[in-house]
Amino acid sequence: MSGSSDKARATSNPGAGRYFEDFKLGEVLHHPVPRTLTAGDVALYTALYGTRFAVQSSDPFARAIGLKAAPVDDLLVFHIVFGKTVGDVSLNAVANLGYAECRFLRPVYVGETLTARSEVIGIKETSSGKTGIVYVRSEGLDQDGAPVLTFARWVMVNKRDSSAPAPEPVVPTLAERVAPEAFADAWPTIDCAAYDTALAGSPLRWEDYEPGMRIDHMDGMTIAEAEHQMATRLYQNTARVHFDAHRQRAGRFGRRLVYGGHVISLARALTFNGLANAFHVAAINGGRHVAPCFAGDTIYAWSEVLERQPLIGRDDVGALRLRTVAAKDRPCADFPLRQAREADDKDAGGVVLELDYWVLLPR
Amino acid sequence: MSGSSDKARATSNPGAGRYFEDFKLGEVLHHPVPRTLTAGDVALYTALYGTRFAVQSSDPFARAIGLKAAPVDDLLVFHIVFGKTVGDVSLNAVANLGYAECRFLRPVYVGETLTARSEVIGIKETSSGKTGIVYVRSEGLDQDGAPVLTFARWVMVNKRDSSAPAPEPVVPTLAERVAPEAFADAWPTIDCAAYDTALAGSPLRWEDYEPGMRIDHMDGMTIAEAEHQMATRLYQNTARVHFDAHRQRAGRFGRRLVYGGHVISLARALTFNGLANAFHVAAINGGRHVAPCFAGDTIYAWSEVLERQPLIGRDDVGALRLRTVAAKDRPCADFPLRQAREADDKDAGGVVLELDYWVLLPR
Amino acid sequence: MSGSSDKARATSNPGAGRYFEDFKLGEVLHHPVPRTLTAGDVALYTALYGTRFAVQSSDPFARAIGLKAAPVDDLLVFHIVFGKTVGDVSLNAVANLGYAECRFLRPVYVGETLTARSEVIGIKETSSGKTGIVYVRSEGLDQDGAPVLTFARWVMVNKRDSSAPAPEPVVPTLAERVAPEAFADAWPTIDCAAYDTALAGSPLRWEDYEPGMRIDHMDGMTIAEAEHQMATRLYQNTARVHFDAHRQRAGRFGRRLVYGGHVISLARALTFNGLANAFHVAAINGGRHVAPCFAGDTIYAWSEVLERQPLIGRDDVGALRLRTVAAKDRPCADFPLRQAREADDKDAGGVVLELDYWVLLPR
Repeated sequence: MSGSSDKARATSNPGAGRYFEDFKLGEVLHHPVPRTLTAGDVALYTALYGTRFAVQSSDPFARAIGLKAAPVDDLLVFHIVFGKTVGDVSLNAVANLGYAECRFLRPVYVGETLTARSEVIGIKETSSGKTGIVYVRSEGLDQDGAPVLTFARWVMVNKRDSSAPAPEPVVPTLAERVAPEAFADAWPTIDCAAYDTALAGSPLRWEDYEPGMRIDHMDGMTIAEAEHQMATRLYQNTARVHFDAHRQRAGRFGRRLVYGGHVISLARALTFNGLANAFHVAAINGGRHVAPCFAGDTIYAWSEVLERQPLIGRDDVGALRLRTVAAKDRPCADFPLRQAREADDKDAGGVVLELDYWVLLPR
Repeated sequence: MSGSSDKARATSNPGAGRYFEDFKLGEVLHHPVPRTLTAGDVALYTALYGTRFAVQSSDPFARAIGLKAAPVDDLLVFHIVFGKTVGDVSLNAVANLGYAECRFLRPVYVGETLTARSEVIGIKETSSGKTGIVYVRSEGLDQDGAPVLTFARWVMVNKRDSSAPAPEPVVPTLAERVAPEAFADAWPTIDCAAYDTALAGSPLRWEDYEPGMRIDHMDGMTIAEAEHQMATRLYQNTARVHFDAHRQRAGRFGRRLVYGGHVISLARALTFNGLANAFHVAAINGGRHVAPCFAGDTIYAWSEVLERQPLIGRDDVGALRLRTVAAKDRPCADFPLRQAREADDKDAGGVVLELDYWVLLPR
Repeated sequence: MSGSSDKARATSNPGAGRYFEDFKLGEVLHHPVPRTLTAGDVALYTALYGTRFAVQSSDPFARAIGLKAAPVDDLLVFHIVFGKTVGDVSLNAVANLGYAECRFLRPVYVGETLTARSEVIGIKETSSGKTGIVYVRSEGLDQDGAPVLTFARWVMVNKRDSSAPAPEPVVPTLAERVAPEAFADAWPTIDCAAYDTALAGSPLRWEDYEPGMRIDHMDGMTIAEAEHQMATRLYQNTARVHFDAHRQRAGRFGRRLVYGGHVISLARALTFNGLANAFHVAAINGGRHVAPCFAGDTIYAWSEVLERQPLIGRDDVGALRLRTVAAKDRPCADFPLRQAREADDKDAGGVVLELDYWVLLPR
């Protein structure tokens, strides 16, 4: 833990992050720093995204359906946990390639404290020999060390030394879809008769949606530099591309890059228009940041219902599998999709995000 | 509640808002979404406006005068309630025409939960036939359904179909001035001997002001795009003109419009210089947003004391009726007023806001 | 307290601040406004600076080492207290010349209420006859009136009337260095065996540092206009140069100036890379804002260990004296220092801040 080489690295090159050669299959990384969630974090989350889901917005609403208080927004939990992994996993990443098998394991409340750990579940050098792909499974843990969130992600990481030998490649098998059985009992039973749909903003319950339905979420949100910086710092995410305009001027985009999770939260908040009762993100099957976002971009979103599934053993809530697509500087009334990759369309038709995930709604 | 036409609209056109034809006289709109106020909201309010009134800033100060804790800033309560009404009342508004008869009915504290409802109290088609004026009386309600705030406002709303027949016009009579009797017992009795004026920042109590006094509040505050967006999202106010730079580029002003309430809060915070003991906004007689504000504008303000009134049955506090005028990019040492409308002066001499309201001060 | 001249000034020129002639040696100024610290303030502090020190970030971590909860960041306490002094001390300051003898006297927690007072400990007119230097010792006090923070600072203040006679000059003797004995027992004993360095982000304890060590903190943070404005308003600091772009256009720099304390907090947050266990700022020996900062500047920092001192009577923590240097638009891998003043180098080689201070680390 505190060997002299660790200490030497901590002194000579603090916060330098890990390179591809530093990742060993099966290794478990315990990420600093623990973080107690507060009402301040929740207020900032509201101010940054304008989220309006009633269960997270109101203690009495949450208590009426059987929760002990308004839970913290699922994606705020995700961002805090994700932020902790950055310093050890992706500080030297060239690209965040994907997410999979993300499950929210229980409601999280103000006053709880989160830590994070990641296991290296795959490594594979790329053909260039200059980078490698690292697969990790990360967990968010509560104050008692019990997991509240799990997800896999894979990133392309620079090698420190391109002449270093390639490790034996191991690529994990990751599900394209989280099965509803895997999250059916993660969320406590709610009193769905006490769920006041009018107060929550929409008459639509789970059974009112059908696979194939497409919903334009209508509104657009323009990102300011201060907003995405404050968000990412709130999450104690240290990825330098988000904060350092001076160095980024010489970088790939010539400017600060918006944290992909910021765009996910904007898109999720926009889905309130049409999905106001989708009160809980239960799982994320996969997500792709199709194009980068920058301050000044205006984010729009639309969603398609991919599946409607009951949950075994419960009749209070059901699950919808959604694909939410976010686009920039382009309203989504015509439901744009990412262009086929073969076409090598650099701007992806304005699409910046495709997120495939499960939400719960009252029945 | 969940009729099929409601559901069809919720699916096909979520968050689309109501048009003039949708408003029926006497109809009561129950607005989503309930909102629990937290210490995070209060901190953000301070960060956005720099407000310094001692009663709201310090729990011990508030307890010393007899309150149970520092109450939430009156205007934060107003913005949260107002924000809830936007989706049902003014999402398709061409203009917010005015406020009247606004009263704050009791102190509101962190931990309380607000909802809102509005009654349609007047409707009148305009001569163009393309729009109509809708008058509503909105109430903010606490977790027990008891009102904490009431106000009337009227907005010009687009018709969905300009050939739709005009309704019978009904224009409510709204008072030009809230009578002090109407709010005399809304605020609990305070221990004015325990009110430490030095600690609060000014030696001036109620009796030190005279009608006709004019006060330049001196300071200026420049609005940043991120600030007004964060404010308006914190209030869960969904008016699109504030967030969507892309669509606004093709709009009337070519850019995002600052929420009028943001300017009111800036002006109120600026009044601390000269009115540091005006610890409570008791009522708003009327307010006009004379000109729009945009990011980059610097707001200055001055106030005139219009009336000084004792409150029947109490000698702890008295009321001042103020007119606070805010101007942009123009210090207010010469007390500018809005130009006469006849002059058709488009920039109104820099004036952006005239607010006529009652405040309480210790005697 | 409430004499008629005070009242006249409060009415005619509210918030105008004091000029050099207004300061009398030995005078004690009781500053408004009391401020209760909340979880919202802490969350905003995190969002503004991305601070990650485990003791302040996590209640369980703080409790494990023997504190009752996560204390409020030392610099947030400093900024709140400093902010209160501005209206009476430095509103008409031409320059903030320095700090000295700053000591943090105990941990401060959410829920506590701070006030501030300053004693005038020196006054000296400058040779121009147009300004004078005022020395004050300011204290932050808790809800019981007990001090939690003390510091001296000196500012150059405009005279109201340049023909006013010069007072007898008195220049206090201020220590160049706070002696460790002066803060040795300010912070409660911690259980350093329970201090989990891995969880806190670095294996380096007090004994791993040596005088002469230099640490590049690597990351850069670009300041947005909304961020420094929100920070400074959160601190209820009313210095006009930070908020009023309109007046500043005609000022010395042509734009808003970033509050120097904002840069100190950015630098302190950056020191996490390399000093993750420096969990407490015990004292500030001195600080110089070498050059002004503006929105758009990117702040980098490096530190040198100047001294390593044990604390008499305790073996749980030790003290490091650091000099942290912040530079703008200039990474610090080569450890830049301020250019010699003689050279009259206007940009000071990019250096904007030199801060000489003591931190505590677990042994």
